[in-house]
Amino acid sequence: MGTSELTNPLAWIAVDWGSSNLRAWAMDAQNHVMASASSPRGMLSLTATEYEAELLGIVDTWLPENGQTPVMVCGMAGARQGWQEAAYLATPTRLDQLSRGAVMPTLADARLRVYLLPGLSQSETNTHLYDVMRGEETQLAGLLADTSRFSGLVCLPGTHSKWARLTDGTVTEFATYLTGELYQLLAHQSVLKHSVGQDDLQHEGCRRAFTQAVTAIYQTPERFSQRLFGVRARDLLDNALPSGDARGAVLAAHLSGLAIGLELAGTCGQLTPGESVTLIGNEALSHRYALALETLDIDTRRVDGDTAVLAGLTLAYQRIQ
Amino acid sequence: MGTSELTNPLAWIAVDWGSSNLRAWAMDAQNHVMASASSPRGMLSLTATEYEAELLGIVDTWLPENGQTPVMVCGMAGARQGWQEAAYLATPTRLDQLSRGAVMPTLADARLRVYLLPGLSQSETNTHLYDVMRGEETQLAGLLADTSRFSGLVCLPGTHSKWARLTDGTVTEFATYLTGELYQLLAHQSVLKHSVGQDDLQHEGCRRAFTQAVTAIYQTPERFSQRLFGVRARDLLDNALPSGDARGAVLAAHLSGLAIGLELAGTCGQLTPGESVTLIGNEALSHRYALALETLDIDTRRVDGDTAVLAGLTLAYQRIQ
Repeated sequence: MGTSELTNPLAWIAVDWGSSNLRAWAMDAQNHVMASASSPRGMLSLTATEYEAELLGIVDTWLPENGQTPVMVCGMAGARQGWQEAAYLATPTRLDQLSRGAVMPTLADARLRVYLLPGLSQSETNTHLYDVMRGEETQLAGLLADTSRFSGLVCLPGTHSKWARLTDGTVTEFATYLTGELYQLLAHQSVLKHSVGQDDLQHEGCRRAFTQAVTAIYQTPERFSQRLFGVRARDLLDNALPSGDARGAVLAAHLSGLAIGLELAGTCGQLTPGESVTLIGNEALSHRYALALETLDIDTRRVDGDTAVLAGLTLAYQRIQ
Repeated sequence: MGTSELTNPLAWIAVDWGSSNLRAWAMDAQNHVMASASSPRGMLSLTATEYEAELLGIVDTWLPENGQTPVMVCGMAGARQGWQEAAYLATPTRLDQLSRGAVMPTLADARLRVYLLPGLSQSETNTHLYDVMRGEETQLAGLLADTSRFSGLVCLPGTHSKWARLTDGTVTEFATYLTGELYQLLAHQSVLKHSVGQDDLQHEGCRRAFTQAVTAIYQTPERFSQRLFGVRARDLLDNALPSGDARGAVLAAHLSGLAIGLELAGTCGQLTPGESVTLIGNEALSHRYALALETLDIDTRRVDGDTAVLAGLTLAYQRIQ
């Protein structure tokens, strides 16, 4: 490994440890990132006893010889099947209080003090469904860095997209949509795989297919599974479609618009007139959602996903001081 | 093989040749079934030049030494990727005229005269989507055996469920729902596979979970992908769920209710007050759909799938005489 040179003394370590990977950042006393590292080993490929060694393998060269470094961890490492369970906090949940639910696993190496942050859970009521999140709550907490009593509707697009209603820095309700996973299954494992390729929303044809599908499914969400088969039938019958890769691209955009449009049909009804949506996530996916929302005349504000998770971990670190 | 003894002289042969199998019936001059046979080789495992030999392998022992026997074939054997393409007939389509679109492949064996029946296609308009069917049109034609000018809304449940509006024996419009495939993908390939087992609608708990899910998604189809994740969240959080296999069974019934309920949300709006739905299919699946429709106070009438396809092939046979 060798020792890496950090520009300032290490104050703490930020870690986002998900199902399939681990990302760590070396932080100084002003909460600036000095270095980062990652590993492709997440909850799905680790047993509880392997976490400490995996973490040390990534951060060892950052650690000073003396003293104990706090490590703030969000994500699936705190799941029951992870390192150690940090039990869900039930909604409504104040996002500046996540650290109160943190658990500290017993470690062999005295140089580390690890805090596993909890996820959130929601019970079923007349208006809410059972739901859980683990990792996204820390990104939501990151919104409080700029606005400590943040209010608004927030969307975190992804394999399992999360939508959260925040009021004065508290999560009052949230909902998970299987959108990304649904798209992947349909595009690669269903009968649609014969029709669907790779889209590119920079191209006008894809863009139009995407926004038309968003509008159509938003208006008639009850026809979702019919419109899915319609992608295949369109491939067989629509003479206006281009040929070759462009054809698969247009049909991929069509399918993506159906999946995302259905999600928006389920969420955007709760927006008050003129209210915007805050999107937290990577550039490409946030752009796709912003285009879909724009099609429905809904404004968006974008926050980078890494920025949000670092801000949320920083908030938790400040709370345990 | 050996020669099988048929009770009466062979008049013609009925064949339902789908994507994954072939079923054949030896028919007498009164259109009664004298014998049946099948093979696990359908369009997906055959090239165009293999169909004749495959058919002969199944029906050879039925054939008289002299004369030429008509063989009426419906299903994917008539697809472009099948034996020979029988081009789609565009809706509106009179179901007693399907044989007009039949094609006759050139055969090596003079004992057979094969008619491949066409499927139906629908162009996109303001109210209809692009759609295709191949095989189901012959089951629909079977409804004309009892009522030559049949009118009504017909559902053929399956991997790709079909709904057809018939008016005076003519298909005026139809729609395909990806319901069965969607269920299979979600139950076996998505994150829900950790929660979903095998349901049994004879059990009260499964029955209740199924009908509740049908009602819920029928009322709020826009929350479909949220309710999908809700199956997983319910498994994690609902203390009232049973344990063991019963748990997986209840959650499977829940998922099935969501998939079928979404389909009904898309179709049942076109029913006139008091109108019933005719279900064509196998016993188990028809029973499941009947329960879902009954939950929504919609009456059903059931027709066995094999009975329907034989009646439809018989109608086509009579037309070519």
